[in-house]
Amino acid sequence: MAKRRQMKLGAMLLGVGRGNSTWRHPDAVTDASINLEVYKQWVRKAEEGKLDLIFIADGLYIEPKSIPHQLNRFEPISLLSALASESTHIGLVGTVSTSYSEPFNVARQFASLDMISNGRAGWNLVTSTLDSTALNFGGKGRQGHPEHNLRYQIAAEFVQVVRGLWDSWEDDAFVRDKASGVFFDPAKMHTLNHHGEYFAVKGPLNIARSEQGQPVIFQAGTSDAGRDFAAREADAIFTGIEHETIEESVAFYHDVKTRVASYGRDPDDVLIFPVVAPIIGRTEGEAEDKYEQIASLVSIEDALNNLCRYFEYYDFSSCLLDEPFPEVGELGRNGFRSTTDRIKANAKEGGLTLRQVALQVATPRNAFIIGTSTQVADRIQQLFDAGGADGFMLGAVLPTGLEDFVDEVVPILQRRGLFRSEYASNTLRGNLELPIPRNRNHVAAR
Amino acid sequence: MAKRRQMKLGAMLLGVGRGNSTWRHPDAVTDASINLEVYKQWVRKAEEGKLDLIFIADGLYIEPKSIPHQLNRFEPISLLSALASESTHIGLVGTVSTSYSEPFNVARQFASLDMISNGRAGWNLVTSTLDSTALNFGGKGRQGHPEHNLRYQIAAEFVQVVRGLWDSWEDDAFVRDKASGVFFDPAKMHTLNHHGEYFAVKGPLNIARSEQGQPVIFQAGTSDAGRDFAAREADAIFTGIEHETIEESVAFYHDVKTRVASYGRDPDDVLIFPVVAPIIGRTEGEAEDKYEQIASLVSIEDALNNLCRYFEYYDFSSCLLDEPFPEVGELGRNGFRSTTDRIKANAKEGGLTLRQVALQVATPRNAFIIGTSTQVADRIQQLFDAGGADGFMLGAVLPTGLEDFVDEVVPILQRRGLFRSEYASNTLRGNLELPIPRNRNHVAAR
Ligand SMILES: Cc1cc2nc3c(=O)[nH]c(=O)nc-3n(C[C@H](O)[C@H](O)[C@H](O)COP(=O)(O)O)c2cc1C
Ligand SMILES: Cc1cc2nc3c(=O)[nH]c(=O)nc-3n(C[C@H](O)[C@H](O)[C@H](O)COP(=O)(O)O)c2cc1C
Repeated sequence: MAKRRQMKLGAMLLGVGRGNSTWRHPDAVTDASINLEVYKQWVRKAEEGKLDLIFIADGLYIEPKSIPHQLNRFEPISLLSALASESTHIGLVGTVSTSYSEPFNVARQFASLDMISNGRAGWNLVTSTLDSTALNFGGKGRQGHPEHNLRYQIAAEFVQVVRGLWDSWEDDAFVRDKASGVFFDPAKMHTLNHHGEYFAVKGPLNIARSEQGQPVIFQAGTSDAGRDFAAREADAIFTGIEHETIEESVAFYHDVKTRVASYGRDPDDVLIFPVVAPIIGRTEGEAEDKYEQIASLVSIEDALNNLCRYFEYYDFSSCLLDEPFPEVGELGRNGFRSTTDRIKANAKEGGLTLRQVALQVATPRNAFIIGTSTQVADRIQQLFDAGGADGFMLGAVLPTGLEDFVDEVVPILQRRGLFRSEYASNTLRGNLELPIPRNRNHVAAR
Repeated sequence: MAKRRQMKLGAMLLGVGRGNSTWRHPDAVTDASINLEVYKQWVRKAEEGKLDLIFIADGLYIEPKSIPHQLNRFEPISLLSALASESTHIGLVGTVSTSYSEPFNVARQFASLDMISNGRAGWNLVTSTLDSTALNFGGKGRQGHPEHNLRYQIAAEFVQVVRGLWDSWEDDAFVRDKASGVFFDPAKMHTLNHHGEYFAVKGPLNIARSEQGQPVIFQAGTSDAGRDFAAREADAIFTGIEHETIEESVAFYHDVKTRVASYGRDPDDVLIFPVVAPIIGRTEGEAEDKYEQIASLVSIEDALNNLCRYFEYYDFSSCLLDEPFPEVGELGRNGFRSTTDRIKANAKEGGLTLRQVALQVATPRNAFIIGTSTQVADRIQQLFDAGGADGFMLGAVLPTGLEDFVDEVVPILQRRGLFRSEYASNTLRGNLELPIPRNRNHVAAR
C-alpha cells in the first residue's frame, strides 16, 4: 500500500517524561526538561540510530495541576537551534501555535532554524487546545481563545502566509558579485502582499530558502476539522494513541489519505506517523515488570490531576472515587474533543469508576507495546505492512526508552530491510523522501 | 567616576557588515549573514578575547533598498541558541521588538536561551523604528505602527510583564524528590495576573529562572523618551555614533546616569556602552589606507540607498546630486529622530550637497577610530577615563575587525589593567558585575 519500502522514524523528546509520575522512575533525570546535556545525549542517540527526526512538543499555559514536564521546560525554537549545532543529519521538529503568534515571526524563526541546520527544520503546527491559553495573551485588541473550527480557519490562513513568506526569495536571487557590486537580483525578491480575513502581511521575509526549500510542516489534528486541515496543508501527520487496534490505525490512515487525494494532492506526499510507545525487556516478563513499575509510580492524586487536564481542570476530587465516572457534559470538548469523547465512551461501556478511569488514563496499558525487542519490531512491522503508517513516532515512556529502541529494535528493523542503515540525505525532506516545494514565484523561463 | 576599574567589552556581529558595500571588501565572506560557521568563528574569537558579550541586531521589515545584511539574515533567538552550544562564558545578546511580539513569547524565549546558556542571555529591547514594519504584522485587531512615544509606553508595560513572568518560580520551587513524589512546591509558583492598559497576562511562565536570575536588558533609545525608558528599565545601554567628541559622550553618560538616579536606581547598576568602530593598521598609514578602501567601495547609488533608509525611503534620486541637501520636512522623525535631525543640521551648517551628505553618512570618517592598536587603545582609554563609558561595543567595520581587535588591542588593554585576562564568572550578569535581581515573589522568612 505505502509507496515506500522503508519506514520513517521519529522520537519525541519529553524531558522528565509523560504524565505526572515518570520523573520518579529510578533512571529518570529529574531536571531533564531544562537540562541541555540530557537533550544533547538523546539527539546523539537518535542520530546514531539514523532516525529521521526528533520532536519537541509545546504548550503555552500552565497551572499547578499541569504535568511536571510542562511546568518548567525549554521553548522549542531555542532548544532545537541549540541542538542543531550538536547534530548533522537528523530532523529538528518543534511545535508552535498559530493561535498565539504572528505569521511573520513564525515564518522567520523556522526559516532561520532551517538555515542553521542546513535544511533540517520541521514545524508541528498546532492551534492550542486549552481555552485558558488566551489568559497569557490578552490585552488591547485581543479576542480570547478562538472556538475549535475558527482556530483551524485562522491556521489555514496563517500557514498560507508563512509558506508565501518562505518563497520570498528565489534560490538564485543572491548574486553576491564583488566586482560588479551586485548583491542580489531585485527581480528575484518577491513581495507577498497578503490581505486576508485574519492577516495582512506584506513581506518579503528577510531570509532565503534553505537546502530543503521549506521547513516540513507537521500536524496532529484528530477532529474532523483537524484531519481536513492536515490533509490540505501538512507534509506529515502525527497521530496519537487513540487507535487501539491495527484496524483503527488503517482506517485512520485510509481516511486521511483519501482526504489528501480529495484536495488534489498526491497521497504519498503526506506521511502518517502514529505514536508508538514501546516498553522493551530482555524477556516478556522483564518488559511487563517495567510496565508495572511505571504504573506503580502513579498515585491516585496524580491520576486525577492528569485526568482533569483534559476536562478543563474539572475538580474531580469533589467526586467519589469508587462511584461511576461522573457526568461532565461538554467539558473539554473545545480542547481535547476526541480524547474526552473516548474517555467518556470507555467509562460508560465498561461501567468504570472514577478511580479506574483515572488510573487507566494515566498509564493506559493498551497504549504501550510491551515485550522483547523482537516482539516490538514485529508489532511495528505488522502495522506498517497492514498499511496503517508511513512511519512511527516513538513516545517517551521510560527514561531509557530511546536508548533501548535504538540499541535493540533499530538493528532488527535494519536487518529486515525495513529501516535505513545510513542517512540518504542531510535534509529532513531528503530523508523523508518528500519533494522540495517549488518556489511559487519562480518563473521557469525568463 | 565609574565605580569599575575595568571596562566591559562587547562585539556586534553583523554578517556581511554595515552599510551597502562592506560585503565587497576582499576579506568579506559574502554569505556571512546566513553562514553559521562564520558566526561560530567570531564567537570563539570574542571568547578568546574574554569579551563580555556578542550582540545580534535585528529588524522586521525589508524592501529592495535595505542593506545587504538585512535582506537575508538569521533571526536572533535561533542564532544565539545555536551559538550557546559553541561557547561557555560569553554573553549572548539579541534584539527583539516590543511592538510586534507577545510578552509571554518573548519572556519565554529569552528565559529558554538563558537556561540553554546557563545564564548568559541578554535582550536588546527595541520598539522598532520603521513605520513600515506594521505592514508585516497587519490583520484583524491590529492597529498599525504606534507613534514614537506610544511605542515606549507599550514597551514599558511589556517589560513589566516580561520581568514579572521571569519571576514566576522561586529558585527553590523545584523539590524533585522521587521518594515523596513532590516535584515542586506550589507555594513557590507565582501567578502574575497582570491587567494593564495594553496587556493582560496571567502567567505563570513555564520556565524557571537561570543562574543569573533574569536575562540582562539592553536598550538603545536616543530620543528623550528613549533615554528615559532606558534609565527606568534597562540594565545596560548601547549608544551609537552620534557622539563625535569625548565631551558629547560624557554629557550623554551624565544625562543618562542622572535620569537613572532620578528613578531611585543606583547609577552603577546601569552600564553605558558607546559603540566604537576601530580600523586598525600596523602603522597609522596602513589604517588610513584601510579606511580609504572601505570608503571607496561605496557607490553614489549605494550611498543614496543608505541615506533614504533614515527618511522613510524618500526617493532622493529625484533630487540633483550637487545641489544643497533637499528639504525633507518631518520625514523619518518617527523612526530615526535623532539621526535625521543630526543629518539635517550638519547639512545646513556645512552647506553640503546631497552627494556630500550621502557619502558622509555612508562612511562617516569621524565615526571610526583609525590608527595603530596603541592609538585605538589610547582613544578608548581616554573615553573611559573621562567618564564617558562603562564599556564599549565594537562596531563591525572590517570583516577582520573583531580579529584585529582581539589580537592587537585587547592585550594592550589587559597590560594596562583596563580589561580582564580571565572571565570572573560564567554568567553575563557576573561578568558585567550587575546584581542578580531579587525575585519579587520571594518572601525572605517563611
Ligand atoms: C503526537 C502528537 C503530538 C502533539 N503535540 C502537540 C503539541 O506539542 N502541542 C499542542 O498544543 N498540541 C499537540 N497535539 C495535539 C494536537 O495538535 C491536536 O490539538 C489534538 O490532537 C486534538 O485534535 P483537534 O485539534 O483536531 O481537536 C499533539 C497531538 C499528537 C497526536
Ligand atoms: C548600538 C545600537 C544598536 C541598535 N540595535 C537596534 C536593533 O537591533 N534593532 C532596532 O530596531 N533598532 C536598533 N537600534 C535603534 C534603537 O533601538 C533606537 O530605536 C534608536 O537609537 C532611536 O532612538 P529612539 O527610539 O529613542 O528614537 C540600535 C541603536 C544602537 C545605538
